[in-house]
This record gives sequence, structure tokens and C-alpha cells, in this order.
Amino acid sequence: MRLGELAERLECRLEGDGGLEICGLRALEDAGPQDLTFVVHERYLSRMAGSAAGAVILPEGFPQADRPALRTANPYLVFARALVLLHPPSIAVPGIHPSAVVAPDARVDPGASVGPLTVLGPGAEVGAGTVLEAHVVLGARVRIGRDCRIYPQVTLRDDVVLGDRVTVHSGSVIGADGFGYARDGHRYVKIPQVGRVVIEEDVEIGANVTIDRATLGETRIGRGTKIDNLVQIGHNVRIGADTVIVSQVGISGSSRIGSRVTLAGQVGVVDHVEIGDDVIVGAQAGVTKDIPAGSVVLGSPAIPHTEFKRQLAATAGLPKMRKLLRALEERLAALEGRLAG
Amino acid sequence: MRLGELAERLECRLEGDGGLEICGLRALEDAGPQDLTFVVHERYLSRMAGSAAGAVILPEGFPQADRPALRTANPYLVFARALVLLHPPSIAVPGIHPSAVVAPDARVDPGASVGPLTVLGPGAEVGAGTVLEAHVVLGARVRIGRDCRIYPQVTLRDDVVLGDRVTVHSGSVIGADGFGYARDGHRYVKIPQVGRVVIEEDVEIGANVTIDRATLGETRIGRGTKIDNLVQIGHNVRIGADTVIVSQVGISGSSRIGSRVTLAGQVGVVDHVEIGDDVIVGAQAGVTKDIPAGSVVLGSPAIPHTEFKRQLAATAGLPKMRKLLRALEERLAALEGRLAG
Amino acid sequence: MRLGELAERLECRLEGDGGLEICGLRALEDAGPQDLTFVVHERYLSRMAGSAAGAVILPEGFPQADRPALRTANPYLVFARALVLLHPPSIAVPGIHPSAVVAPDARVDPGASVGPLTVLGPGAEVGAGTVLEAHVVLGARVRIGRDCRIYPQVTLRDDVVLGDRVTVHSGSVIGADGFGYARDGHRYVKIPQVGRVVIEEDVEIGANVTIDRATLGETRIGRGTKIDNLVQIGHNVRIGADTVIVSQVGISGSSRIGSRVTLAGQVGVVDHVEIGDDVIVGAQAGVTKDIPAGSVVLGSPAIPHTEFKRQLAATAGLPKMRKLLRALEERLAALEGRLAG
Repeated sequence: MRLGELAERLECRLEGDGGLEICGLRALEDAGPQDLTFVVHERYLSRMAGSAAGAVILPEGFPQADRPALRTANPYLVFARALVLLHPPSIAVPGIHPSAVVAPDARVDPGASVGPLTVLGPGAEVGAGTVLEAHVVLGARVRIGRDCRIYPQVTLRDDVVLGDRVTVHSGSVIGADGFGYARDGHRYVKIPQVGRVVIEEDVEIGANVTIDRATLGETRIGRGTKIDNLVQIGHNVRIGADTVIVSQVGISGSSRIGSRVTLAGQVGVVDHVEIGDDVIVGAQAGVTKDIPAGSVVLGSPAIPHTEFKRQLAATAGLPKMRKLLRALEERLAALEGRLAG
Repeated sequence: MRLGELAERLECRLEGDGGLEICGLRALEDAGPQDLTFVVHERYLSRMAGSAAGAVILPEGFPQADRPALRTANPYLVFARALVLLHPPSIAVPGIHPSAVVAPDARVDPGASVGPLTVLGPGAEVGAGTVLEAHVVLGARVRIGRDCRIYPQVTLRDDVVLGDRVTVHSGSVIGADGFGYARDGHRYVKIPQVGRVVIEEDVEIGANVTIDRATLGETRIGRGTKIDNLVQIGHNVRIGADTVIVSQVGISGSSRIGSRVTLAGQVGVVDHVEIGDDVIVGAQAGVTKDIPAGSVVLGSPAIPHTEFKRQLAATAGLPKMRKLLRALEERLAALEGRLAG
Repeated sequence: MRLGELAERLECRLEGDGGLEICGLRALEDAGPQDLTFVVHERYLSRMAGSAAGAVILPEGFPQADRPALRTANPYLVFARALVLLHPPSIAVPGIHPSAVVAPDARVDPGASVGPLTVLGPGAEVGAGTVLEAHVVLGARVRIGRDCRIYPQVTLRDDVVLGDRVTVHSGSVIGADGFGYARDGHRYVKIPQVGRVVIEEDVEIGANVTIDRATLGETRIGRGTKIDNLVQIGHNVRIGADTVIVSQVGISGSSRIGSRVTLAGQVGVVDHVEIGDDVIVGAQAGVTKDIPAGSVVLGSPAIPHTEFKRQLAATAGLPKMRKLLRALEERLAALEGRLAG
């Protein structure tokens, strides 16, 4: 593809020779004369001179480049779109692999692709353009929308519902029983988990994630939310739209997470709390109570980040403070001695 | 089922019309006139009036209901039992699916069910009433008792033993090698892990859990213990009976956990420590040494919870304390100046 | 095997009767007269008298044993090697199981073993002596070296490369997409992840681990590094040689971990930081910035361990310090009162 055509399709301002043939998109150090590269931070500008790249994606406002450039106000977005154009994903051939085990009453759209050794339970439904790769297991009555991609070794248990354009990476388990027991003396008696899980459209779920089915009713992940690897989401949790949940986060049963929230890595959220819209929870924080919309919290238990930083600084100064306190005590005792004398 | 029959089978005291036909059990907001619902906390009582539910499970001592009620001293337990009666689990048909790969010398009880594409290694044994769903892999000599349920994509490695009525959810791996190496200069040499894992009866294991085989001897999970998703249990760990291990907990090698213990979410336990019976470890705590029976601990490193709360309050007061200290220093300096003058 | 032959093959000094026949290696309490046992810590010496073991592995410098002994300067290493000799791993028969689904252009060495229901994508390559157990899924162009062992239910996505003698335990996912999105207003647009993962020789990867493919370029795990269960390694991370990563650690995108590093359990590392060689990061610590080579750090955020311990002690003393401060204030007020009076 010529650089000029790329500029047009990516809605960028072209600087320099639009006739240049571009074959791929690579990092500064790996790019060759037929590659496009990108600089998104000022700190990488100095490395551009040493790159063999034929052209570069540059934010508006950065200095003039030493080669043809695509200028944009949102270089990450252009980078994402350029990757789709220059490294298009492999296309799966529609149809059902002969080794798949498909229940007689499962409905697979002729435009869907079902990979080797994949199992579809009774009443399962798979929409057009959806790809189930090898070794996927769908329980009874699972419903998957259009243009989804389910990677190998995913399990969707009975009654799970996926909207359109949902991606689930390998090893994830959606719809396992929630963790609920009643006490009978010292023994625990299982509370059957008869609810379901609903994943709305455009959600992406990482690898080895677990999202539990509801006790009654549903566990729900909102439109466009992105979930990283090894995340745990308990029964009856509800998550809003466009929220980001980083790796190894755990959300306990019945908690509600708003829209446009960020939970950083290894955050824990106790059960039955509510995190408002646009909240940011810092890495490893422990949320133990409701968090109002728009807050930024840190620490375990989580507190407002300004308060956390103040306490952190004060704790760092503690050994010095202890010394000062002892010195004051001596000076005070000396004064008391003089006055008593 | 009529409400009167339900009351009898659930051993509840019936208030109101026992002839009411009940079809399901639903939450207050979702229940219809033929549904049973439940109120277990005072705070939900006010919502009862707005519910269309035909009848309600109520704790003894709560005020008179506006509809027929099942009274009980243990509403959670009655709730669990009512779910089993009103939403009975699907029953698997006994037999071996033709796509399963079963070693010639594996022994499967005629009353057991082996799902599609499940693999049974040499010498594996499966008891009556046990269900292995699709895509389960049993290594050599795995022994599974009666009435167990093993969900899709579970791996039980060689020599793992499961007692009766054990549940293992999808993606869990029982019997992978423990993490043990000997140093040879800077290099690590693997210590073969030749022990096994024993899971006693009535244990439930969540999704994507890992329980490692012992180096020598065994890793053992005691009767009735419940393990949530994404938990890691190291080699040679021993856990007692009726213990609860919440999601994302990690227990390092050779540690011993007592009976009736609760480890809350994301707790870490170092290797070779002992946690006594009836201990509660709060979420995200880090256990670095033995914990005596009956303790409640919090924090990383974990300390008694009263001490933790005292320190937490003191830390929250630190910035103020620092100001006070500076003020005292000034007042003291002023006094010293006056006395010197 | 006779004890004398064992001594020779393990390069140990023999004390006592080399003619003793040894059948196995067991712990002190389990060993019988034909078993070898081991004592590696002084604290277990007292239990030796009660053991029925026929012989014992003992560190040089420990007191004379009451039975034949194998003396060594590195008892863990001898223990590891003795286990290999006395409990040799099961040998897989080379060949491809008839139920495996192998792409026509995949290349499997005749000395490799491919288990039941395993799937090999187009262009996959498997070296001599490598064992793929049941239910393994290899994507397109995956390349696996010689003498590797891949346990059941592992997924290696397209273009993943494994060196020789790599072990991957069940449920692990190598090469899933990294967690990368561009913002478009409030919405997240996926950045295609078109890089790969390279695992160098002699790496061992635990169960249910996730190692993401690079956005561009590669994610790389260095020679001899050992990774425990449920670890998350983000896209474009690079890890050096002989590093140990304990269970449930999370390493965010583009961070670099040196050689001979230890990350203890549940450690979190933010993105784009660099941890130098020979660093030790304590359990549950949170690394938020670069850590110089040779450091030992603790806490969240992680700080040098001496500083952490000083702050921890000071925090423990805080309630007492607060009381002291109040007493000083009273004494000071008393003095001020007298001087004013």
C-alpha cells in the first residue's frame, strides 16, 4: 500500500512522498525502508534518526521529521488502525470441522467457523462470522452473537450469552458456579448457582479469566469493557461500559463497577460494594467500601490517592520523627529539671 | 410443588396458605406470583412490599409478612435446599461418549458418565454416579470416587485421588509438578515431583485452580473444604476440614492450614508455616509465620486484627501528628529561649 | 540399585555398607529399610533416629549417622539427582495418536510423541524427544525444540517458539494477545498484537500461566528461568536467564527483568520498568519504578528491605508514640502555665 493511500484511510495529514510503498509496521529499531514506524512520546524522538524506517506516524506538534510522516492528533489510534490494515488477521474458513462434536439441535450460522474437537451442547447458537477455534466447549443453550472470536480451550457453561464482536482468549471459563454456601453447623452446604452470565457486545476477555454465573439472575459485563488475563469476577457482579480491568484483579460477589472505570493490576474488591463511574483504583489496592464516582484511590484498604500519598510520605519520615520526639522529650525533661531545681 | 409440601421438606414453619403452587425461587425484584423469594437481612424487608412474589422465606423473629411465608432459624440453608428442590441440576446420562479416549485398563462404573473427547489414562478409575464432562483429562492411575462432578477442561495428572462427592470446575489443574529446584551454581536443577494429591470427600474446587502434587508423599485437601477460583496450592500443603479459601489465594509449599479456617481473597501464605484451626485471615493479608488457632489476622505481614486496626488509625493520623510535633518543638524552643534569656 | 553404585553416580562420599539394595527415596517418616532418605537441615537430625530408612543423604559437616550415608556439599542437588535415578519419569512412546488433528504441513519428528486429541496447526514443528500430551493445541507455525514436555490442555498460539528442554504445565496459555488499546473518546479500540513469544531452552512454566505475545517484536523468557503457577507476563516483557518467578506474580507490559532475579509470590510489577540482575523482590511487593541490580526490596510500593523493616517497626510503635506525644504536650502545657503564672 502506498503511503498516500494509507494517509487517506487513516485520516492523517501526509508530510512528504505519498508514493512510498509500505509493507509493514514495525518498531523504530526493527523497521526497514518499506516499513512504517511510530513515535508517540517525545522521549523516543531522538531514536528516530537511527531508524531505517521509510515513514513514521507522528503526533501533531512534534518537530519536522527527517522522512515522510503521517501526522495525527491520536497517534495510538492511528497505530491501531494501521496495524489492522498492514497486518490483517488470518481469516477462518466458515464451516464445522469434522472432528467437532455438535449437538443435533445446536444452530451454527453457515458463516461461522467451528474448529477441531470443539463441543457444542444442546441448543447452543453461534452467529454469522463468529470463529470458535479448536477445543472450545459450549454448554447447553449458550448463545454467541456475530463476529465473535473464541480462542482454544475456552469453556462457556450452560446458558451463557455473548453479544456481537466479543473476544475470549484461551483458558477462560465463563459461567462456572459462584462461590456460595450456607452454614449447617461447621459444614458448608452448596447454594446451587442457577443464574447466568451475559457479556455485552465489544467486550474482550483475556486468557485464564474466570467469570462466575449468578446465584439467581445474572452476572453482566457491559459493552466495550476490556478484561486482562487471570481476572476473577464473582457471581452477580455487574460491570458497566468501557471499563478496563487489568490482570489478576479479583471482584467479589454482587459488587457493582461503573462505566469508564480503571481497576489496575492485582486490585481486590470485596463483595457487595459499589464503585462509581470514572473511578481509578491503583495497582494492588483493596476496595472495602463504596467509592464515589470520579475518585482516584490507592492502598489496602483503599483511600483517596492524595491521602494515601500524604500517609506514605509521613510513614517514610517516621524513623526521623521518632528521633525528633526523643530529642524533644530530653529537652523537655531538661527544662523541667531546671525549673524544679 | 405446593407451599405446604415445601415447608415440610424444608423443615420450615408455614405461615399462611399452604396450597399455593410454587414453580421457582427468585430474587425479590424478579419473582412472580408463583415464585418463592427470600429476605435474609433486615435491610431488604422494606423491598418486600414491592415484590410480586407469591411467598417468602423469612428468618424467625422478623415481622409478620404480607404474604405466605416459610419461617426458619437458618434462612441461607433453607434457601440452598429450596434451590435444589425447585431448580434441580441436569442429570447426565450414564455411559461413555463414543468420542472419549479411554485406556483399555481404565475402569469406569456403569453408572458413571464420560463426556465427549474426555481422555482416561491407563489404570484410571471412575466411581458410580460420577460425571466427567467434555474435554476432561485423567492421567494414569487417577482414582475418582462416587457422585463427583468434573467440569470441562479439567486436568487431573497421574495418581491424583478424589473422594466421593467432589466437584472440580473448568480449567483447574490438579497434580501438576510442585515448584522445586536445587541450585547448581547459578542454575536451577529440577527436583522431580513424585508425590501425589489427595482430595477428600465433599470438597469443591473452583475454576482455573492449581493444586500441585507433592515432591514426596502427598498434598491433601480435607473433607468439606471449599476452594474458590484461581487459587494456588503448593506442593505438600495440607488443609484441614471445612476450610474456606477465597479467590486468588496462594499457599506456598509445605504449609499447613487447619480446619474451619477462612482465607479471604488474595491472601498469600509463605512456605512451611502452620495456620491453626478456626483462624480468619483478612483479604490481601500476607502470612509470614505460624498463626495460633482462633486468631483473626490482617495486613502484610499479617498481625492480629486489633493491632492492625490500631496501626491503621495511627497511620491515618500521622500527618496531623507530624504537625503537632512541629508545633510542640516551636513551643519548646520558645520556652527554652525565655529561660535562656 | 546398590548404595555404592548410587554414591558413585551421585558423586557422593559413601559412609557405611555400599552393598545395601536401595529401591526408592522417601521422607524420614515414610522411608523403609530399602529406602534412601535425606536430612538437609540440622532441625530434622533429631527425627532421623525414629526413621526406618536404610540409608540417608547427609550434608558434609553433620554428625556421624546411625546408618549408611551419602555425604555431599549440596544435598538438595543430590536429592534431585537421586530422585531421577530412583523414580525415573514415565517414557512416552513416539508417534502420533490416531485421534490427534495434525495439519498436513506440520512437521513432527519421528522421535516425538503427540497425545490423544492434540491439535497441530499449519506449519507447526515439533522436535525429537518432545512429548505433547493429550489436548494440547498448537497454533500456526509454532516451533518446539527437542526434548520438551507439554502437559495436557496447554495452548500455544500462532508463531510461538520454544527452545529445547522446555516444560509447560497444564492450562497455560502462551501467545494470547497482549492487553493494548487506543482511546477513541471513551471507547477502547484494540491494538492488534502481531508480535510473538520466544521461550529459551531449559525454561519451566507452571500451570495456568499466561504469557502474552508482543504487540510488535517479541516477548522473551531467558534460558533456565523457572515460572510457577498462575503467573501473568504481559506483552513485550523480557526476562533474563536463571530467574525465578513464584506463583501469582504479575509483570506488566514492556518491563524488563534481569538474570538471576527472584520475584516472590504475588509480586506485581508495573509496565515499562527495569529490574536489574540479582534483585530479590519480597512476596506481595509492588514494583513501581526501576530497581538497581543486586537490590532486595519489599512493600507496596517496593522500597529497600532495610528501609521497609525500619518503617514497619516504626509503624508498629506508632500507637505508643502517639501516647508519648500527648504526654509531652501536657508536660509542656504545664511548664508554659507555670512560666506564665
